[in-house]
Amino acid sequence: MKNWVSVIIFSFMKGLVRIMSDTIAAISTAIGEAGIGIVRMSGKESLDIANKLFKGKKIEKLTESYNRRLVYGHIIDPKNSEIIDEVLIAFMKEPYTYTRENMVEIYCHGGIIPVRRILDLVLEYGSRLAEPGEFTKRAFLNGRLDLAQSEAVIDLIRAKTDKSYKVSLDQLEGNLSKKIEEIRNILLEMIAHIEASIDFPEEDIEEITYEELEEKGRIVYEKIGKLLQTADRGKILRDGLNAVILGKPNVGKSSLLNAILRENRAIVTNIPGTTRDIIEEYVNIDGIPLKVIDTAGIRTTDDIVEKIGVDRAKEMVDKADLIIAVFDASNELTEEDYQIIDIVKNRKSIVLLNKTDLPNKYDENLLKELIPDKEIIVTSIISGIGIDRLENAIKKMFYSGNLLVESDILITNLRHKNQLIKAKKNIEEGINGITSNMPLDCIEVDIKNCWKNLGEISGDTVGEDILDKIFSEFCIGK
Amino acid sequence: MKNWVSVIIFSFMKGLVRIMSDTIAAISTAIGEAGIGIVRMSGKESLDIANKLFKGKKIEKLTESYNRRLVYGHIIDPKNSEIIDEVLIAFMKEPYTYTRENMVEIYCHGGIIPVRRILDLVLEYGSRLAEPGEFTKRAFLNGRLDLAQSEAVIDLIRAKTDKSYKVSLDQLEGNLSKKIEEIRNILLEMIAHIEASIDFPEEDIEEITYEELEEKGRIVYEKIGKLLQTADRGKILRDGLNAVILGKPNVGKSSLLNAILRENRAIVTNIPGTTRDIIEEYVNIDGIPLKVIDTAGIRTTDDIVEKIGVDRAKEMVDKADLIIAVFDASNELTEEDYQIIDIVKNRKSIVLLNKTDLPNKYDENLLKELIPDKEIIVTSIISGIGIDRLENAIKKMFYSGNLLVESDILITNLRHKNQLIKAKKNIEEGINGITSNMPLDCIEVDIKNCWKNLGEISGDTVGEDILDKIFSEFCIGK
Repeated sequence: MKNWVSVIIFSFMKGLVRIMSDTIAAISTAIGEAGIGIVRMSGKESLDIANKLFKGKKIEKLTESYNRRLVYGHIIDPKNSEIIDEVLIAFMKEPYTYTRENMVEIYCHGGIIPVRRILDLVLEYGSRLAEPGEFTKRAFLNGRLDLAQSEAVIDLIRAKTDKSYKVSLDQLEGNLSKKIEEIRNILLEMIAHIEASIDFPEEDIEEITYEELEEKGRIVYEKIGKLLQTADRGKILRDGLNAVILGKPNVGKSSLLNAILRENRAIVTNIPGTTRDIIEEYVNIDGIPLKVIDTAGIRTTDDIVEKIGVDRAKEMVDKADLIIAVFDASNELTEEDYQIIDIVKNRKSIVLLNKTDLPNKYDENLLKELIPDKEIIVTSIISGIGIDRLENAIKKMFYSGNLLVESDILITNLRHKNQLIKAKKNIEEGINGITSNMPLDCIEVDIKNCWKNLGEISGDTVGEDILDKIFSEFCIGK
Repeated sequence: MKNWVSVIIFSFMKGLVRIMSDTIAAISTAIGEAGIGIVRMSGKESLDIANKLFKGKKIEKLTESYNRRLVYGHIIDPKNSEIIDEVLIAFMKEPYTYTRENMVEIYCHGGIIPVRRILDLVLEYGSRLAEPGEFTKRAFLNGRLDLAQSEAVIDLIRAKTDKSYKVSLDQLEGNLSKKIEEIRNILLEMIAHIEASIDFPEEDIEEITYEELEEKGRIVYEKIGKLLQTADRGKILRDGLNAVILGKPNVGKSSLLNAILRENRAIVTNIPGTTRDIIEEYVNIDGIPLKVIDTAGIRTTDDIVEKIGVDRAKEMVDKADLIIAVFDASNELTEEDYQIIDIVKNRKSIVLLNKTDLPNKYDENLLKELIPDKEIIVTSIISGIGIDRLENAIKKMFYSGNLLVESDILITNLRHKNQLIKAKKNIEEGINGITSNMPLDCIEVDIKNCWKNLGEISGDTVGEDILDKIFSEFCIGK
């Protein structure tokens, strides 16, 4: 029996050692035409691999005495002595590195070819390609970051506005983790209290215990609830508010997109859509990232309504957090408009009545009758009239509801939200147990579950499968 | 009078000092979701600016003793003590830097926000945004790189294939510059010889002079000619061979593009087109970068011929180095096909007869009659048949003509080519002068001009306007 245990432990250790002792490598900068690109390695062999490929101008080899020093030289293919690039290289000695392992970073020319060729060489000479997020995963496994901090890293990189960036940075700095630990400490106190009562029942502290437990339980419940209240806003901050612009041809959709882009030019970014044809742009409305999907992008012909039947357009509308429907005030409602009204009716949407600069041929009341519950914003996009009202309506939508107005810590991550929901349910059951005087050991189960639920946020209690899922969503090279 | 001169000199010096003593800053990595982003500064103030914003974990301030050392800490906005990002930072002391000036590089999280916010801060605290290529321009002005080497930097970054990369790297390493210097040295010898003869005519060395001059002149002429012969191939290596795929709807254009991409997957890259609608992809055919423009990208409707009339499509066809026209073997020639045949006739093109897997409804000889001078490649793109023949045809096109088969130095740059053409013309006139026994001082003019023409390649003799033009084509941050 004992033998089996050691075999299992040995296998486990071997697996872990294998996983952790590999030297991994990846390109860590975005691919594109740029001044500098970085290839980085992490693991025991990184210095040796670097020394096989690097030839310094002044020094022959990198040694530990060059720790953290940028050294100038060339990467040379040992097979044929071909110069691959002129680089700066730095060796960083464990444990004071991102991964807590030995690391080497090679700073070469930007562009597609230099980084790829250098990566090919370091892979050929003893490293393996890092999985997405594997550098950060090692930082987590080696105790440099907890799980919520690790998750913040990728959110930081993907942040669309300064506000969402700040939330991620706070999380990376450990603010969410601290909050979670604070709650978990209360839960630990509760557990300790319960166990003391169970172990020493003769001291008859039970009555005080129930009272105190209830008080603490309610504090925990409230704290979890407050965090959960931030989740909707957090999600939007992280992922952006999905807005689809709908309207018949020539109603001003593209002008609207351009108008929003122009007003928020500073932080406009083009993120290529998942498919070639859909055009998505992120704009920043007072810190709220608005992902605008221009339906004009999915067709060059004229019939939007015909195309709404198309799967892709339909999918976009169904996925949208918000539909911005544009109607033409200078013309009668057409068949197409009626179809758009049908789409808008049952969905979160803002209605624009555009082209109000032109002679009004249009029965305004009709639209109000058809969509009575929607605010209609009168615009003349081409003259810039009404854009501010649209932006205010979007902001109102975001800040409305039971969202907190100010909070340093926001729950931006769906996984965290789900863990908080579970934790809330468990503490709720615990409180019910307390108020109905259930036996302490029953209550303890709920409280321990709550403690575990929260532990999965910081990564104290989390399975390998969840880790794999989390880090697989990272980009390679981080 | 003297006063005026000093005023002018003083103004000039002041301008130069101002230009060169500014501290410049830029984002040096590509923008996108990535592990690491870099903001770099160059100039006298860079260390001071960094120290206003950086707070190390272990050290308070960067000093010169931290030269070239990666230091861990945070970038903090002094205005409100807000943490902007967790970074590594390195100070590099002049003169052993890229620009030969003091430099600071800040390695922060990748993604759009961190690099932008850090850039904003360094600009706010005393640097100014670098112009495109300004780091490299300073490297040139401070004598670290000559002009041909500087130009190689951006070619290196933009290289599309290993072959074009290698040519640029050779140029960066100074191989082209050496070759140019070699020729210029011969010219200098000629000039020295001529001046000696003019200064000491009594020694009557004139006859020997003419003979020797002619011999040397012919060597120069030949060397320049050889370089010029590489220019066509060099241009293609650098910029890619512009190939436009033409064909009526459903003839297999997209399949063809995918087939080429698939076979050359390793080095496939997506370069966003200059406009949203045109889809351009670079593929690598044995080291030749082929820029494939899929005309399917410019329309979603069906009528290619109708659209060929459209300005943009027409422009693409006119600019193309190569047209790949695809015809359908399973159907009669249509009106559209005839229009495509018209386009193909007078242009460099490869003709594919596709869908040969289907029952042949098509009169093969007709196409041969209509385009007698084109090789027709029979394909079944969907089954992968004929793709290799297409690739061979492309390669043959590239390696044919008077292009050299092997040469270490390739002229890839249009500017260099033009200078070489001028130089060749001048040395030719010089030789004519020699063979027709023109006075030595007349001959000297041509030889000096040739020497100057070549000097503009290495940057020995070059005006500010040309410098501005060259570096304006760089990316920012290099």
